[in-house]
Amino acid sequence: MAAMELFEERGFEATTVADIAARAGLTKRTFFRYFADKREVLFSGTDALRETFVAGVAAAPADDCPLDAIAAGLDAMADLFAEFGEHPRRRQAIIAANPELQERELIKMNAYAAAGAGALRERGVAEPGASLAAEAGLAVFRFAFEQWTSGEEGQDLHALIEHGLTELKSVAQSS
Amino acid sequence: MAAMELFEERGFEATTVADIAARAGLTKRTFFRYFADKREVLFSGTDALRETFVAGVAAAPADDCPLDAIAAGLDAMADLFAEFGEHPRRRQAIIAANPELQERELIKMNAYAAAGAGALRERGVAEPGASLAAEAGLAVFRFAFEQWTSGEEGQDLHALIEHGLTELKSVAQSS
Repeated sequence: MAAMELFEERGFEATTVADIAARAGLTKRTFFRYFADKREVLFSGTDALRETFVAGVAAAPADDCPLDAIAAGLDAMADLFAEFGEHPRRRQAIIAANPELQERELIKMNAYAAAGAGALRERGVAEPGASLAAEAGLAVFRFAFEQWTSGEEGQDLHALIEHGLTELKSVAQSS
Repeated sequence: MAAMELFEERGFEATTVADIAARAGLTKRTFFRYFADKREVLFSGTDALRETFVAGVAAAPADDCPLDAIAAGLDAMADLFAEFGEHPRRRQAIIAANPELQERELIKMNAYAAAGAGALRERGVAEPGASLAAEAGLAVFRFAFEQWTSGEEGQDLHALIEHGLTELKSVAQSS
């Protein structure tokens, strides 16, 4: 993707929409038909991802505990990421280099947690349990995703999520 | 506080730094000696609060599980809030009405979670457990704090936190 290449070559801040449009062979006007600003190039897939997550939570076995239902949604996202090749790793490196993009990512993740809590309430989970399970589950995802994108290649995102969930359950156990 | 009154009367967006300075009997220059911008009026106390939280985690009994050590930090914050009278409730109403301020609050809370994870690592808790316990604990705090500031007056913030922690532990239990 033209924009990703430019962000990698020049840095996110130094890249202009005009640069991106020129590299992609588009007019600026066409660019703005698809994206509100250059940040959106990096976040355009997040709505689809959130829907995948919510559908995964909804489809979890009825007797799953709330956190395990969230985990089913996280696994559905991980399935999708597995199809994206190098893209998530490249995208994450761009985001990690820019505090403004990190904030935006955090805000998107918060929206995922809110959507996950909604999906749990649909399953009959009461508050505050629904929100807490969703937020804790998203914390697991963020940690696993960061390891997956910044660590050695060839790691399994599902296994990292599973490990995080086990850890989360264990830190909540009184010794 | 002059700024809070103005935010309540006119809304956060419609209030200018010149308005705040005039109401407080200050020059704009003096205002900017203390605050980088008008948002900072609402967030100037957060560093002190984060230090209280971290000190509370550090001082928790050595045999507390990681989540209970985080809970000790949350209780230390709750002690502090109890001394602030009406201020937290008024501040929260202003933040709840403005998406930009909500985002800033979320980013501050994320910094608290990072600081709490650091305090747990000092206690010998390994990652990802330290980060997950801290993020899950802060999710409990956010939910409790929102109930405390938006619900009926006279609720006990400590009891709301305790309830959230119990709920968090229960959503992670497989049925």
